[in-house]
Amino acid sequence: MTFQITHHNGQARVGILNTAHGLIETPFFMPCATKATGKSITTDDYQDSGVKAVIANALMLSLKPGMNIIQKAGGLHRFMNFKGIIFTDCGGFQMSRSIFEKKEKNGLYFRSPYDNQKIILTPQKIMEIEITLNSDVAMMLDDMSGYGVSKEEARTAMENTHRWGKECLDIHTKLRKRHNSKQLLFGIVQGNFYSDLRIESAKFINNLNFDGIAIGGLAIGEPKEEMYKSLNATLPLITKEKPRYVMGVGSPEDILECISKGIDCFDSVYPTQTARHNTLLTWKGKIDLHQGKYATDFHPLDRQCGCHTCQNYTRAYLHHLAKINEPAGKRLRSIHNVFFLQEIMEKSKDAIKNKIFAKFKKEFLKAFQRL
Amino acid sequence: MTFQITHHNGQARVGILNTAHGLIETPFFMPCATKATGKSITTDDYQDSGVKAVIANALMLSLKPGMNIIQKAGGLHRFMNFKGIIFTDCGGFQMSRSIFEKKEKNGLYFRSPYDNQKIILTPQKIMEIEITLNSDVAMMLDDMSGYGVSKEEARTAMENTHRWGKECLDIHTKLRKRHNSKQLLFGIVQGNFYSDLRIESAKFINNLNFDGIAIGGLAIGEPKEEMYKSLNATLPLITKEKPRYVMGVGSPEDILECISKGIDCFDSVYPTQTARHNTLLTWKGKIDLHQGKYATDFHPLDRQCGCHTCQNYTRAYLHHLAKINEPAGKRLRSIHNVFFLQEIMEKSKDAIKNKIFAKFKKEFLKAFQRL
Repeated sequence: MTFQITHHNGQARVGILNTAHGLIETPFFMPCATKATGKSITTDDYQDSGVKAVIANALMLSLKPGMNIIQKAGGLHRFMNFKGIIFTDCGGFQMSRSIFEKKEKNGLYFRSPYDNQKIILTPQKIMEIEITLNSDVAMMLDDMSGYGVSKEEARTAMENTHRWGKECLDIHTKLRKRHNSKQLLFGIVQGNFYSDLRIESAKFINNLNFDGIAIGGLAIGEPKEEMYKSLNATLPLITKEKPRYVMGVGSPEDILECISKGIDCFDSVYPTQTARHNTLLTWKGKIDLHQGKYATDFHPLDRQCGCHTCQNYTRAYLHHLAKINEPAGKRLRSIHNVFFLQEIMEKSKDAIKNKIFAKFKKEFLKAFQRL
Repeated sequence: MTFQITHHNGQARVGILNTAHGLIETPFFMPCATKATGKSITTDDYQDSGVKAVIANALMLSLKPGMNIIQKAGGLHRFMNFKGIIFTDCGGFQMSRSIFEKKEKNGLYFRSPYDNQKIILTPQKIMEIEITLNSDVAMMLDDMSGYGVSKEEARTAMENTHRWGKECLDIHTKLRKRHNSKQLLFGIVQGNFYSDLRIESAKFINNLNFDGIAIGGLAIGEPKEEMYKSLNATLPLITKEKPRYVMGVGSPEDILECISKGIDCFDSVYPTQTARHNTLLTWKGKIDLHQGKYATDFHPLDRQCGCHTCQNYTRAYLHHLAKINEPAGKRLRSIHNVFFLQEIMEKSKDAIKNKIFAKFKKEFLKAFQRL
């Protein structure tokens, strides 16, 4: 059985996802290993910070180091020495003007940032890449439209997504057999911020035989109300039997809100990107490490925190590293934020098991938003 | 007793230096913690890589974070959480055109790179800074002349060094009493690459009551023969009773050569700077990680190495990190090179104790220079 729910508390649930590289308890949060590494933080740092799963990008890895090398290494887990679960995504690059060229019915057209080579990402190509990477969960090829586009543009992207989804599923079924692989394939709901499109997309993707359902195209710069409106339109149409994954989320507040709605998986650059920019998460709220008051604050970032950074360094020292622009500071800050998000996930699971998730969420937010 | 020699093997020796923060066996190598951190590598990484001592820069730390903050932290050890021995240096900035302005008889004139403030570094000022940092070994204020300067310029720098050395010693004696401090003070021999000046300087500095004698102004871009000519002119005039420190060295080859001449302490940016630029040290020689052949080399940097990097990652993976310019790669590479130099020091001490240092050196160089 791929996914089994073990505990309920309102809509929130704890479950177990069964993958080729082992079991993982849901809900879980994945930091990014886009190019087979975090930014300024390594996969061993992730593991030491309690991370059980990461998400890498199939397109980027196919460009560098290239599939040949990852195949020779024995797959992505061995290449980057990560012993947990790996998801691979392929899309999202429509947002990156520097490498995206255009989309056609057959797929997405890119230019490699490394050698300017033309790349056409089709369902066939991406499924082959993902099965070769040997990730635990492959994401289908989707077409994500940006915030603020016309309904027509949103509909085209949604229809591409649906067509590619069906193709990915067919191709993946064959590849999985041929490679004798246990890789899972997740579908992705699109539909932009138009509720009727979200409903249409949710129904379509939910009816296909995916191992899990992701909701894509959220947390891309829209106001919070828009995000939750789209999410609320989508969720009732998605089966509760499969793992549900909101892509690109994110902040502690959004993660807890989504968990309360029954979401099981998350990924985001949030903890590492904010850390690089000196925003640190604590149980008493966010702090901006650049502020002068931290120059003489000889406490750890968070007094309750067991992370490597808090065990070794003070706010005053980390403030100093920020002021001299020392790259090592980015790593120390990232370790803390990643550890903090993992702690939130652990506490959330405990709260759901103990049937007190609503109380936990309320108390967390009260303390977190105080500063 | 500050320094005690425990083993001899030819000129090479093993000894024990007794400092305020504990004993350290000589010879030892110190990587840099110039601004209270390594570059891309942290003090906990140093400790995990076997580093027993580091060198920080008193002038840079007095500018940022400033003495007030380090004093409040309880000294430099506590500020940067380093549990080993700390040396502090103050000079060398005559070489950095961006902050050095001029020298006068009373000291060195700088502009702060942070706020353009004018700074005059006098013996009084630097001794006060170093005693406040509470480092284990303070270096005197010296005047280092560059490679290729006239004999007149070299003499002026040497005479400044001698005058400042005497002043530092007088001031430090008083400060040490007033602060009830066990901080040691090392003198520095200058004299550029003029053997007669080196001899004059060695005699002068050796006659003062320093706790150790450093040889400065070497490894600044001169040909190797010039460096060893100056070193050979200096060494016979320096007592064997005190610890002898060659500043700015360096490479495995130079360290072993200097150990064979009876040197006890070393510091250099070498292991970390070369690592950042993708030159990695192995028992079979240096490798340039950028080379294409490493893209599919799934062995660790060195098969005998026990460092964190070699325990976790392959050459192929590190090559990938180098190719995508991932900052985390700089740290992983630095950890390896720092660990490797510490291993050389450990093996050197063992070889001296076993009276086989010349053999060890010869065999190391044969294998190291093979590639």
